[in-house]
Amino acid sequence: MTNIHIICLGKLKETYWKEAEAEYLKRLQPYTKIIFHELREESFDEKTSISLIKAKEAEKIIAELEKIKNKYIIALDERGKQFSSVDFAKHIQNLATQSDNLVFIVGGPLGLDESILKSAQLKLSFSQMTFTHQMIRIFLMEQIYRAQMINSGRKYHY
Amino acid sequence: MTNIHIICLGKLKETYWKEAEAEYLKRLQPYTKIIFHELREESFDEKTSISLIKAKEAEKIIAELEKIKNKYIIALDERGKQFSSVDFAKHIQNLATQSDNLVFIVGGPLGLDESILKSAQLKLSFSQMTFTHQMIRIFLMEQIYRAQMINSGRKYHY
Repeated sequence: MTNIHIICLGKLKETYWKEAEAEYLKRLQPYTKIIFHELREESFDEKTSISLIKAKEAEKIIAELEKIKNKYIIALDERGKQFSSVDFAKHIQNLATQSDNLVFIVGGPLGLDESILKSAQLKLSFSQMTFTHQMIRIFLMEQIYRAQMINSGRKYHY
Repeated sequence: MTNIHIICLGKLKETYWKEAEAEYLKRLQPYTKIIFHELREESFDEKTSISLIKAKEAEKIIAELEKIKNKYIIALDERGKQFSSVDFAKHIQNLATQSDNLVFIVGGPLGLDESILKSAQLKLSFSQMTFTHQMIRIFLMEQIYRAQMINSGRKYHY
């Protein structure tokens, strides 16, 4: 069974996002192993440039990626490719036959560094709209769960 | 000040979605009046056709729309137009100069009836992916809040 890794920056702050994520994690348990890699966010200050913060975060992400073998890297990016949920489900299923580890990377509040976007095999977009990176984690969990329901032919009333 | 109406089917069930919505409602209070119109969902059963359920829900939505004067109707629909958050903010701002009431319609689990989609002045899509209609309510609230932050030139760290 392919593992799904989620590399992200910072912890969920709001209780409601934590509970939403926990719910999808619970529902996903019978289907797939989800491994979270929560890296420490760089702190914001007026003096440090955005590009420097993103570069520092990229270093941490790269160090984390090096620990995962035989992987396929998907970076979440507004300007990336959009899929329908059905196409996403099929794509995930197909990737799972080729890689032991599917790695999703969700950036911090400033987004991902160019170096990470370039190293990803797929840039995935949920929306042209900007959402908080906390919400993007929840969207991702829900779409992974939806993909499992689609791929296993189960009903999922929404 | 333009009122924002949200016509939707059914109540939020999960506590975490209720809390997320309440948080955005609270944050929006100084900026705009949000009026929820929660209509009763039609119950699902194996015998009733999907088109009949959608038609019944459409009747209720139309009755509710008739109560709102001088309005601009935006239906949420996967196949609708996508905006960036900045373009959405500008669009909302522009519409507010023309209408007293901005009405967003979020369908139920089966989506909106064709008659409602046709009667809307704008069909708005957040994503090509399918999400639960409960989540769509939260996305909408967050984007309305983000639009207010963009239009009032305020920082909103995400």
